[in-house]
Amino acid sequence: MKTVTEYLWFNTRQRREFINITDKIKEMVERSGIQEGFVLVSAMHITAGVYVNDAEEGLIEDIQTWLEKLAPYDPNYKHHATGETNADAHLKSMLVNHEVIVPVTHGFLDFGPWQQVYYAEFDGQRRKRVILKLMGE
Amino acid sequence: MKTVTEYLWFNTRQRREFINITDKIKEMVERSGIQEGFVLVSAMHITAGVYVNDAEEGLIEDIQTWLEKLAPYDPNYKHHATGETNADAHLKSMLVNHEVIVPVTHGFLDFGPWQQVYYAEFDGQRRKRVILKLMGE
Amino acid sequence: MKTVTEYLWFNTRQRREFINITDKIKEMVERSGIQEGFVLVSAMHITAGVYVNDAEEGLIEDIQTWLEKLAPYDPNYKHHATGETNADAHLKSMLVNHEVIVPVTHGFLDFGPWQQVYYAEFDGQRRKRVILKLMGE
Repeated sequence: MKTVTEYLWFNTRQRREFINITDKIKEMVERSGIQEGFVLVSAMHITAGVYVNDAEEGLIEDIQTWLEKLAPYDPNYKHHATGETNADAHLKSMLVNHEVIVPVTHGFLDFGPWQQVYYAEFDGQRRKRVILKLMGE
Repeated sequence: MKTVTEYLWFNTRQRREFINITDKIKEMVERSGIQEGFVLVSAMHITAGVYVNDAEEGLIEDIQTWLEKLAPYDPNYKHHATGETNADAHLKSMLVNHEVIVPVTHGFLDFGPWQQVYYAEFDGQRRKRVILKLMGE
Repeated sequence: MKTVTEYLWFNTRQRREFINITDKIKEMVERSGIQEGFVLVSAMHITAGVYVNDAEEGLIEDIQTWLEKLAPYDPNYKHHATGETNADAHLKSMLVNHEVIVPVTHGFLDFGPWQQVYYAEFDGQRRKRVILKLMGE
């Protein structure tokens, strides 16, 4: 059994930004030489998410509109008594989920034809990390 | 360490259909001889989900009604400019989540008394896959 | 490769209660001696969740208010024909998700500065379990 751990750093220009990180995960798996295993892709901050879905611009806008509807920005969250104004980013992170497991088979990401991994930043413009941890052989 | 990878194929009659796949996972674990490990159960399409909850028909109807309320069908999603009409199925997939990890202990699914694994199809009537990937020893 | 399996038992005073279980997971990892791996933290009941977010009381209230808004208590769920009155707890469990994977690197939980693991009880006042399953070496 072998494990490989890497970190992706982000510092988005916009407060909210979705970034396709599928190729970063592929490259890490190729470098590792691991043929069979799992890659954990997990946001290390609690105002960002990681999810698997389509690389289609219209859908990405739909997802952002939908998240704003279900977990809206609002000045009046109790969390804001701490001085923060980002409670909605925490709720969006919970809705999207902060991590996925990607299966690796014969050295490749074992994905269906349209599956892509996205980093979803909900409170950016500062340095934040995602862990990629691969376990297998 | 050993890994086993299998695929479940679905082609549902209805556009939306929930299918209990717990026994398929049990059978795979038994065939493998693996005593301790994790099974990843992950939809390979981005308009379907996998979740763990109750095998109770009333609750399944409640879940479907609830998903329709939080991620409704609507002709006006931006994704539909591609010619698709299934943006709601993508959103439902994100809400339910597309994968679970099932623990295996002493050769059995290490579940509580009511836990069942469901495949949730939101845009069916065509061939779609779920990966079952077991890693352990 | 090594696996360690432990169970946390809960019997909350309130019907709904959120409990920080990060230290329990840390202690388990330390006892195991495992340096590199994954810990699965998964609720074994279908009316509870496990999630990663902030240990901040205001935010925890915000999360609870938000869950009640998106998956409200209602006497009229179809599930209640079984005699249960907890369909909302099942929906809340699905929204929060019932499990997380925590990465272990150099013998420690490989978390960002604010990540904490919570057990979210939605239908307590009875004995319920969470499985902690660590796989690594």
